[in-house]
Amino acid sequence: MKISRVAERLGLPKERLSELQETIVKESDWPPPRLMRFDKPVSGVEAGTVVFYTGEVVYGYPKIKRAMLLEPAIKRQFTGIVAVEEKMNGYNLRATSIDGEIVALTRGGYICPFSTEVVRDRIDPEVFRDHPEIVLCGEMVGPENPYVPKSIYPVDSAEFVLFDIAKKNSRVTQGVHPTHDLAEEYGLNVTPLLGEFRAEGAYKEIVPIVRDLGKRGREGIVLKDVSNEAPPIKYTCSESNCMDLEHAFRYYNDYASDFIVSRVVREGFQAVEWGESSEEIRARAARLGESILLPLADTIRRKMEKEQIAQSVQIRVKRIQTAKDFEQHLRRMGIRAIFDIPVPDVDGYVVRIEKMVMSTNDKTQAMIDGQLW
Amino acid sequence: MKISRVAERLGLPKERLSELQETIVKESDWPPPRLMRFDKPVSGVEAGTVVFYTGEVVYGYPKIKRAMLLEPAIKRQFTGIVAVEEKMNGYNLRATSIDGEIVALTRGGYICPFSTEVVRDRIDPEVFRDHPEIVLCGEMVGPENPYVPKSIYPVDSAEFVLFDIAKKNSRVTQGVHPTHDLAEEYGLNVTPLLGEFRAEGAYKEIVPIVRDLGKRGREGIVLKDVSNEAPPIKYTCSESNCMDLEHAFRYYNDYASDFIVSRVVREGFQAVEWGESSEEIRARAARLGESILLPLADTIRRKMEKEQIAQSVQIRVKRIQTAKDFEQHLRRMGIRAIFDIPVPDVDGYVVRIEKMVMSTNDKTQAMIDGQLW
Repeated sequence: MKISRVAERLGLPKERLSELQETIVKESDWPPPRLMRFDKPVSGVEAGTVVFYTGEVVYGYPKIKRAMLLEPAIKRQFTGIVAVEEKMNGYNLRATSIDGEIVALTRGGYICPFSTEVVRDRIDPEVFRDHPEIVLCGEMVGPENPYVPKSIYPVDSAEFVLFDIAKKNSRVTQGVHPTHDLAEEYGLNVTPLLGEFRAEGAYKEIVPIVRDLGKRGREGIVLKDVSNEAPPIKYTCSESNCMDLEHAFRYYNDYASDFIVSRVVREGFQAVEWGESSEEIRARAARLGESILLPLADTIRRKMEKEQIAQSVQIRVKRIQTAKDFEQHLRRMGIRAIFDIPVPDVDGYVVRIEKMVMSTNDKTQAMIDGQLW
Repeated sequence: MKISRVAERLGLPKERLSELQETIVKESDWPPPRLMRFDKPVSGVEAGTVVFYTGEVVYGYPKIKRAMLLEPAIKRQFTGIVAVEEKMNGYNLRATSIDGEIVALTRGGYICPFSTEVVRDRIDPEVFRDHPEIVLCGEMVGPENPYVPKSIYPVDSAEFVLFDIAKKNSRVTQGVHPTHDLAEEYGLNVTPLLGEFRAEGAYKEIVPIVRDLGKRGREGIVLKDVSNEAPPIKYTCSESNCMDLEHAFRYYNDYASDFIVSRVVREGFQAVEWGESSEEIRARAARLGESILLPLADTIRRKMEKEQIAQSVQIRVKRIQTAKDFEQHLRRMGIRAIFDIPVPDVDGYVVRIEKMVMSTNDKTQAMIDGQLW
């Protein structure tokens, strides 16, 4: 790819881009098409930004910041009307078409072979024919999901759920109404729009929404300015924080401590903002403690019983080659996984995958062997 | 100081030591005597090792490794007789005499003016006259303690409690019996020796000791090979882990996430090793959750009520100059603290100190102001 052309498009000096090659900017020619990928953010270019060999740029989806205290955050961040959308719990994707072929980019800017197959199957290709410049920003959710499998949605396998739209070569995303309009026009799954409120009164309307989502095991909400001027903010349910902790402590040595502590701290802010009584906060503490201690103890016990600690996930593919490509994709991501033999099923194959959690396995075994920390 | 002489004493090449100067090896001439201090471990030289201008070396006290599962750790680490000592909860010091003056070195190898005054007051100077080469390794404990104030011991202000002895210019420490013999001879406080057991049967003897210490709010135990051949290991009580968490979550943004997660993980291993029933483990989870959530919520509430979040500690000094020097010492350690005017009291002065926890203050205030995480 011509560095000078790419640099010009991104608004970076050519020399700067050359410097970054092979450190922050990585080239990839598999799966096709050929592209350059930004591994980290650089001078206003989001991490995950991809420049295709055609010169087309798909910018990384901007990070959505988190409210720890909803009421003051809404007051500070918004005026006018706030739309409340459900935050979907899966993994982030951008779907676009290059030379007429649909590809699905992960958050980090990789083409994921599995996600690409699902997206090609689920999204009406008409949307890309009518809008060749479009980038569909969404979340892949459902139980047959290799990264964040969840059975909390009415989804059998894996579905792409749209939450925003963008255009190639543009950093701007279109916001709530154009997204829902497009979804309706093309029959796309779209993140539920749970209400629109004036900023002043929004907090008291939103709290019951968050509580209800929590009870249903859902992740939380994203608040968006309907005029698309202020950046969106996110907020999660207590139950979702605790589910994250359960997962992290089951694989306690493979998760960053910051991942864990951040989720715990959210619980403190929510308890205070919701004015919990001494009894309520103790109940929350008990839930919190259990979501930490029970999976941790379970992992230690299993390892004592000589079980290998692994994350079992499952994907459903139309072509065996997709599973093979996905295996290759995980390998290049540095994820160790064992793929079972594909089992034929209606309209394709089911493939079970054991994702290794080596650090938790090794550390737990070492402690059982009497080694010291 | 002559680099070549120091290098020779430490068994390091002269060039290597020169390279390390001003990065890992720091010089200090205050408080006297002049010394060189190892900020980090280097080629077998422990962090906290100090080389005085006299050429005398006081090695850093070796880090004691932790058992996560007591029974296999005892089995793997020890044969013969295991002594069980109480692990004191305070801060680590090494007391020695240079040119006939007693000085107290912190874990990091600083001369602490406060600790030096206390040590000069509490330790019979006869021990240093009789043994000019001796290094007393111990813990400073008690409520009037500027680093880890605890009222769990029968100590009114601050006391030095011996737990091992070493010699200048030697990495070897003497172990259990010489330490207790010396303490008896000179009337020094010494860490309680709670029992001696054959390694094979030690685990079942030790569990009730740990439980009892926990009930009394004590930190835990250090297991030592009485023949002083195997290195010692440490193990802490659940209550102590939870107290650490309480403290860390009160100042949640000023503590490293690893500090927090390590304490939580200890609870999981103990629950499994002690074969806790579903009911017992839920009770432990509730304690754990409360020691996390209650102090965290308390800090957020206080900050909402416009309180400044700080750690209040108190020291008792004989001379006002010691408090002034201690203020200077904290400043060079990068700790921000506000010293009250010394209040005269029997035999000296009481000085209240507010240690600032800027990060927790600032972050909590930012959230209250509606900023995003």
